[in-house]
Amino acid sequence: MSMNRVLVGGEWRAPNAPDGSFHAFDPETGAALPPEFPVSRWEELDGMVRAGLRAAEALESVPAAARSRFFEQYAAAIERHAADLAATAHAETALPAAPRLLDVEIPRTVRQLRMAAAVVAGDLWRHREIDTAAGLMSEYRSLGGPVLVIGPNNFPFAFNAISGGDFAAALAAGNPVIAKGHPGHPETTRRLAELCAEAARDAGLPAAAVQLFYHCLPDTGLRLAGHAGLAAVAFTGSRAAGLSLKAAADAAGTPFYGEMSASNPVFLLPSAVAARAADLARELFGSFTLGCGQFCTKPALAVLVGDDAGRQMLGELMALVSASASVVLLGAGVRDAFHRGIAGALEAGARRLARGRVTRTAGFAAEPELLEVDAETFLRAPAAFQIEAFGPTTLIVSAGDEGELLAVARGIEGTLAASVYVASGTSDEAIYRRLAPVLVRRSGRFMTNKMPTGVAVSPAMNHGGPFPATTHPGFTAVGMPRSLLRFAALKCFDSVEERMIPE
Amino acid sequence: MSMNRVLVGGEWRAPNAPDGSFHAFDPETGAALPPEFPVSRWEELDGMVRAGLRAAEALESVPAAARSRFFEQYAAAIERHAADLAATAHAETALPAAPRLLDVEIPRTVRQLRMAAAVVAGDLWRHREIDTAAGLMSEYRSLGGPVLVIGPNNFPFAFNAISGGDFAAALAAGNPVIAKGHPGHPETTRRLAELCAEAARDAGLPAAAVQLFYHCLPDTGLRLAGHAGLAAVAFTGSRAAGLSLKAAADAAGTPFYGEMSASNPVFLLPSAVAARAADLARELFGSFTLGCGQFCTKPALAVLVGDDAGRQMLGELMALVSASASVVLLGAGVRDAFHRGIAGALEAGARRLARGRVTRTAGFAAEPELLEVDAETFLRAPAAFQIEAFGPTTLIVSAGDEGELLAVARGIEGTLAASVYVASGTSDEAIYRRLAPVLVRRSGRFMTNKMPTGVAVSPAMNHGGPFPATTHPGFTAVGMPRSLLRFAALKCFDSVEERMIPE
Repeated sequence: MSMNRVLVGGEWRAPNAPDGSFHAFDPETGAALPPEFPVSRWEELDGMVRAGLRAAEALESVPAAARSRFFEQYAAAIERHAADLAATAHAETALPAAPRLLDVEIPRTVRQLRMAAAVVAGDLWRHREIDTAAGLMSEYRSLGGPVLVIGPNNFPFAFNAISGGDFAAALAAGNPVIAKGHPGHPETTRRLAELCAEAARDAGLPAAAVQLFYHCLPDTGLRLAGHAGLAAVAFTGSRAAGLSLKAAADAAGTPFYGEMSASNPVFLLPSAVAARAADLARELFGSFTLGCGQFCTKPALAVLVGDDAGRQMLGELMALVSASASVVLLGAGVRDAFHRGIAGALEAGARRLARGRVTRTAGFAAEPELLEVDAETFLRAPAAFQIEAFGPTTLIVSAGDEGELLAVARGIEGTLAASVYVASGTSDEAIYRRLAPVLVRRSGRFMTNKMPTGVAVSPAMNHGGPFPATTHPGFTAVGMPRSLLRFAALKCFDSVEERMIPE
Repeated sequence: MSMNRVLVGGEWRAPNAPDGSFHAFDPETGAALPPEFPVSRWEELDGMVRAGLRAAEALESVPAAARSRFFEQYAAAIERHAADLAATAHAETALPAAPRLLDVEIPRTVRQLRMAAAVVAGDLWRHREIDTAAGLMSEYRSLGGPVLVIGPNNFPFAFNAISGGDFAAALAAGNPVIAKGHPGHPETTRRLAELCAEAARDAGLPAAAVQLFYHCLPDTGLRLAGHAGLAAVAFTGSRAAGLSLKAAADAAGTPFYGEMSASNPVFLLPSAVAARAADLARELFGSFTLGCGQFCTKPALAVLVGDDAGRQMLGELMALVSASASVVLLGAGVRDAFHRGIAGALEAGARRLARGRVTRTAGFAAEPELLEVDAETFLRAPAAFQIEAFGPTTLIVSAGDEGELLAVARGIEGTLAASVYVASGTSDEAIYRRLAPVLVRRSGRFMTNKMPTGVAVSPAMNHGGPFPATTHPGFTAVGMPRSLLRFAALKCFDSVEERMIPE
C-alpha cells in the first residue's frame, strides 16, 4: 500500500523523502489501521511556509464573497459526507458514530463553518474606527502570513486542524492555514482535507490557502513553530507539548495561542449538596465521564465540605463509579498518560475511592476512577493535584470547612472553566460572595449550578482563560467573531485618501 | 543628602538595603544632578508584586466613578504643576521646557489621562456580549494582578511609567501598576508619583494601586519580568532590553507588550520627488531631527530612486544637514548607541553624505548625520541597515529603479509606521499600487505624503505593528479604549443570575 499524500501548495503530493511513516490504530482492538501516512520532513514543512507566504498576499485580493462561499461550500460538503466521515472517525477514535459524531460534533463543526461564512460576508470582525478630523482609519486585517494550526486528538471534526474552530477563525481572518492533523485520526483528516481543497478550488482561493500534513518528528515541529515565516500558531493539546511549542514561537516573536489542560474545578457548597446530594453526584459523574473524560473542560477537581451531606454525595459517586464499566480511550498514549496522572495524584497524597469494573481488556481500555484528597494535603502542593489525567476521573477535594474551601480556591491555577453549585437563599450565598471573585479571576468561564463540559457555540462564549490553561487571557478559541482576533493585525491608515487604501 | 524614597504599598518608604544608588545627569553639561536614587533590590520588588496582588483584588470593588475621578484629579494636578514639572524634566533630559514639554507633551499627557477617565466612567472598553438564549454574558475585565510598566527615556511625561499611556491603560482596565521610571529622569518621575499617589488616596484607590521604583540591576529586572505574580508587562525602549525582558515574561506565561525600535521607512516616489524635491528634503530633515531624532517613529530609512530629482533632493538634504548644529541627546548611553548605530551602518556598506557642524562639545552633544546606501547593498543584508540609531540621522536607500524600490520594501522588518510620498495622477500611482500592500503588511500605521513622527492621540490611532517593532501585531499603545485591551482578560458568565455576577 502506498503512502498517503500531503496537501502542499494546492496539490496533493507524494511526501518528499519523509522521516518515516505511521498508522492510526483502532482503539477498540489496538490494531493498526491499514492506511500509511508520512512523517513529514523539515524541507516539506519549510516549503509549506513559503507557499503560505505567497498565498497570504494572494488571499488579500480575494473578495470577501468568495471567501465566504468557501466556508458555505465546505460546510455543505461535510454535511453530504457526514455518514462516511463519522464512520471513518469512529474507526480511528472509538467515539460513537451516533449520537456523538453524527448528531453533535459534525453539526457543530458545520455550524462553526457557517458562522465563519457569515462573519466574512458581513465583515463583522474588523472593528473599524474612523477619526475624520485626524485623518485616521484603523481596523483589523489579516496577519500577512500563514497560520500553523495544530489540532488535538479529542475532536476529530470540531477542533480538527483542517475543519475546526481555529482553522475557521484563522482563514476567516484572511490568513492561509497550514494544518497539522492529529496522528490519531489521519484518515478522517485526509478526507476532510479533500473536501476542503475542493471547496477552496471552487471558491477561487489561492492554491496554498489551505495545506495539510499529518505528523512530524518533535524537533521538526519545534523548528516549524519557530519559523520566522509563520504569522501565528494555534495549538490545542497537552501542556507539555504546548509549552515547548510556545517557547519556540516566542523566540521568533510569533503569537502563540495554546489551549492546554485545565482543572475546571466544581465547587459544591454545603446547602446545595444537602438539598440534592444524589443529583449532584449523578451530574458530576456524567460530566467527568462524558466523552470518556476526554474533554478539555472536564471537571478534574470537585471541591466540597466533608460534612454529612458531602459524605453522602461521595457515597453516591463511589457507587456510580464502582458500577461503571471499562471505556475505550482515544489512544495508547492517552491511556498511559491517564494512568500516569492518577499515579501522580496518588503519590502526592490522594487516595482512590472507587474504580469501575474491568469489562474489557482489548485495545485502549481503561476504567473510571474516583480519587479524593483532603484540603490540607491539597494546599501543601496545589500544583501536584492539578496535573493532566485526560480520561474518566475526578479528584474530590474535601474541605474541613468553608474557610478551607476558600483556601483551595486560591490554590487553583489558571483554568478554562470554574463552577459553583450554590443553593439560592441559603447560607451558601455568603460563602459564594467570597468564593466567586476568586474563581472568576482564575478562569475564563464562570458558571453556577452547571457542569463545565458543555461549550456553546455563541458569540458570547469564552473558551479561554488565564495561563497555564491558555497562553493569553484576552482571547477565546470558540465564538465568532471574537475568535478571529487572535489572527488579526491592527492596521491604521493615516492621511490616506480612501481610493488609495489597499485591498 | 539622603536617598530618595520608593513608593511601596501606598507609602513612601526608605529603600530596603538597595543594590546601590544612582544620579540623573544634566545632558547639557554631563554633570550629575544632586538627588540620589536607589537601585532597588529583589526583595523590595517582590514585595511590590505581593502588595500589587492584594491591590488587584481590592481594586475590583472600587466603583468606576472613583477610578475615573482619580484620573481627573491626577490630570488636574499635573496641569497645576506643569511649570515646575517641565523645568525638572528639562534639567534631566535637555528637552526644551517650551514648546516641547509645556505646550506639547504635558497637554498630551493630561489629555490621555482624561481619556482614561472618560473610558472608565463610560465603561467603554468591556465589549460586553450577551446571548440570552444560551445564558451567556461575556466581557473584558481586569487581569487580576499588577502590571509592570517600564517607561522609556524619551517622553518624560507622555510615556512615563507613572503618567503615560501604558500607565493609564493598565490602571483604567482595573489593574494595579508597578511603575519602573526611567533612570534618565528620576526626579521628574518622583514628582509625578507624588501627585499620582495623592490623587489615588483622594479617590479612594487601594494603597498599592500605584507603586514606583526607579532602577534595578539588569538581572533583577529579568527576574521581576518573570515573576509569576505579574499579570502583564508593558515596555517601551530598546530592542535588546525588550527582547531579554520578553523572554523572561514568556517563560512565565505573562503577556508582554514591548514597543521597541522601528525603521519607519519613508518611500519617496519619483514624480513626488520631481515635483518638490526641496520641500521633501525639508520635511524629511524636520522629521528625523524632531526631538533630536529621539522618537520611536523617527524615519530611520528613506527610500528613493536615484534619478536626477532624487539626486537633487539628496543635495538639498546634505545642505540642511551640513548647516545643522550640535544637539544635546538624552544621555551618554543614547549618544554612544547613536554613534555605534551609525558605525554599524557604515561598516555594513553605507556611506556618510553629510554631518552637522560641531557647535558644542559639553554634555551629551552629537551632530546630525546623513547616510546613504545603494539598494543592492541594502538587499544583501537588510537587517544590518535596520539597526537602532536613536538620534538625528537617517539612512537614504537609493534604488536604481522602481523594481529595486519594491525589493527594498520586501526587505523591511516589522515597523511601527511606513509612509509613501506619491504624486496624485502620475505614474507614481502604478508603483504605489504594488508598494502599498507590501508596506501595510509590514507596519502598524501606513500613511501617504506625511512623515511618521506625529502620533495623534485618537481612538483610531494604531501605535503598534508587527514584530520586532512590537511583540504583538494586534494591539496599540496609543488610542483608548483600544489600548486597554492589552491589559484585559476575557471573562464569560455562563448560566449565572445577574445578581450573582461578581463586581
